[in-house]
Amino acid sequence: MARELIISLDAMGGDHAPDIVIEGASIARERAPNLRFLIFGDETKIVPLLTRYPILKGCCEVCHTDKTISADEKPSQALRRGRDSSMGQSIQAVKDGKSDAAVLAGNTGAQMALAKFILRTMPGIDRPALATLIPTSRGESVMLDLGANVECDENNLVQFAIMGAAFARTVLGVSKPSVAILNVGVEELKGSDVIKEADRMLREANIPMDYKGFTEGHGLGGGEVDVVVTDGFTGNIALKTAEGTAKMIANLLKRSLNESLLSKIGALFASSSLLALKNHLDPNNHNGAVFMGLNGLIIKSHGGASASGFASAIGVAVDMAENDLAGKITRDLKNFNSTVEDADKMDDDTVVEMNIKEKK
Amino acid sequence: MARELIISLDAMGGDHAPDIVIEGASIARERAPNLRFLIFGDETKIVPLLTRYPILKGCCEVCHTDKTISADEKPSQALRRGRDSSMGQSIQAVKDGKSDAAVLAGNTGAQMALAKFILRTMPGIDRPALATLIPTSRGESVMLDLGANVECDENNLVQFAIMGAAFARTVLGVSKPSVAILNVGVEELKGSDVIKEADRMLREANIPMDYKGFTEGHGLGGGEVDVVVTDGFTGNIALKTAEGTAKMIANLLKRSLNESLLSKIGALFASSSLLALKNHLDPNNHNGAVFMGLNGLIIKSHGGASASGFASAIGVAVDMAENDLAGKITRDLKNFNSTVEDADKMDDDTVVEMNIKEKK
Repeated sequence: MARELIISLDAMGGDHAPDIVIEGASIARERAPNLRFLIFGDETKIVPLLTRYPILKGCCEVCHTDKTISADEKPSQALRRGRDSSMGQSIQAVKDGKSDAAVLAGNTGAQMALAKFILRTMPGIDRPALATLIPTSRGESVMLDLGANVECDENNLVQFAIMGAAFARTVLGVSKPSVAILNVGVEELKGSDVIKEADRMLREANIPMDYKGFTEGHGLGGGEVDVVVTDGFTGNIALKTAEGTAKMIANLLKRSLNESLLSKIGALFASSSLLALKNHLDPNNHNGAVFMGLNGLIIKSHGGASASGFASAIGVAVDMAENDLAGKITRDLKNFNSTVEDADKMDDDTVVEMNIKEKK
Repeated sequence: MARELIISLDAMGGDHAPDIVIEGASIARERAPNLRFLIFGDETKIVPLLTRYPILKGCCEVCHTDKTISADEKPSQALRRGRDSSMGQSIQAVKDGKSDAAVLAGNTGAQMALAKFILRTMPGIDRPALATLIPTSRGESVMLDLGANVECDENNLVQFAIMGAAFARTVLGVSKPSVAILNVGVEELKGSDVIKEADRMLREANIPMDYKGFTEGHGLGGGEVDVVVTDGFTGNIALKTAEGTAKMIANLLKRSLNESLLSKIGALFASSSLLALKNHLDPNNHNGAVFMGLNGLIIKSHGGASASGFASAIGVAVDMAENDLAGKITRDLKNFNSTVEDADKMDDDTVVEMNIKEKK
């Protein structure tokens, strides 16, 4: 049997908290019986809800706090007064080793600020990145960064590639994921200097990935590669554009299928196929973005996720914790840095030699 | 009756040249009987094709040249040896006033380089931008830049907004189009300094547009605004992501509807509605991107467009030429600059004053 996993939850985060959080935890517990929960938030609201879910009630501990972070709170405010909030305490539990991961649906900016402050970045990672699974016609791909860093340098992008590959090996189960950097396709404009330099570094790197070079926006939907690497500005816009396009088509399809009696009959006959497609594209089924590169596992859920969507985010936390995501990243970074150090060593030796000569 | 319009065509550009170009011109001529064409390229290939389209044959002139620009030619090569190619001559005809616009399906980088070199940018425009119509659930929106400039400063973005608004007034027929800059939505990361400064400048500008501030990737598919302004890197990736997502969903839908006998029957009943949706999303029906900000009208067609798609691109050229796009941009730029100059004048006066004082 799988070892017991403890997940800390901010019961007060998200549009429909705490109801959705509690119901989501109950669904996740049905899927993974090795789960236990630390639930942070207002016990006067949480405890009555738990009576509906006796199994969940038997495997969770409610940790009361009055303090919550509101949706419009600025990250700087969250840092000043949010450490003992339900969100801050959920993260602190990971830091203190009381839980294996935290799943949070509240204010993203506050999450990022508190998680960075409390957990700090892993050695060798300059900046954390937000990564998620996106639906493709082949299945799913990993994309990062989705908005944690508006501007990135080449080292950030290389680190994102390493972390994204570890994510894919953990969740998609591919041993050597294909990785590419998102770029424009117009022939003479092959991106900025930052992108070109990151491309060069990844071509030379010794890490368990199949580095493919550049990919274009067209390739995202087709699932051309397992891991798509980009800066947070572009990633945020690409992800939201894809979601917005899917929603637009769903709306147009619904409208089209309601246009005439014939098309309504058609929709009825095809309903089970249409439902399967809807499920594949539903963001709730791909819910759960990971703050990569921190000393601890923090999963961000969509604020508007359904209970089943919140359970998916908990599922991502389980996958990551059971498959040692952090260990994979640490090992790959070490391999990558040792290659770079070998190249750098010669320079160091030359410097030492020069110093000796000077002293003589 | 509308005045006669002359369009120059590079018969040798695109994946299926010259067949698609000639057939596309014939379709466009049926839609707009006031069209005449200057067709540049290999007459031994063009003239036999024209025998199939007697009406087109009666309203076009074939201008022979052996020289063509290949799909993999670099912009620098195109500049060195491409001025007398079919592409170069099509653009030169616009410069010389022999045609009202050129429609080109060949190598995009070469088009951009030759068009910039031959036509030069309009006074007040630092860099041209590539703009196109994208399908939305409301209808269509204008988006620019789509890849002409990988990096942009705040002045570029402001000029793109002015040109995009003129595009929307010309083609979408709205007198005061709504305009927004594409940005990320995570609360504390409201984009780069460049975006913030462009936002400030547009809020203060006196131009016929309804400036809305920022829009997110989610808003593209919903047609939240008439004009979406962004740098060429982000624009290229957003456009291709949207196209790729639409294609992915179409593939998944096709697969779903073929899954069972029931769903096949459903698809049959709904076929006319599904076809209408397919048409709305078909890139061929939105074909025709405009190089904005040049002293002359250049329209880029997708290299892989169908004949009907190429005719759509010619249709965009007709709209732009008949509705005086260039005049609109020139007037708006003048208004915008006079506002800025008023603000600057004070500084100039102060400088003059200081000089006088110093001389004393």
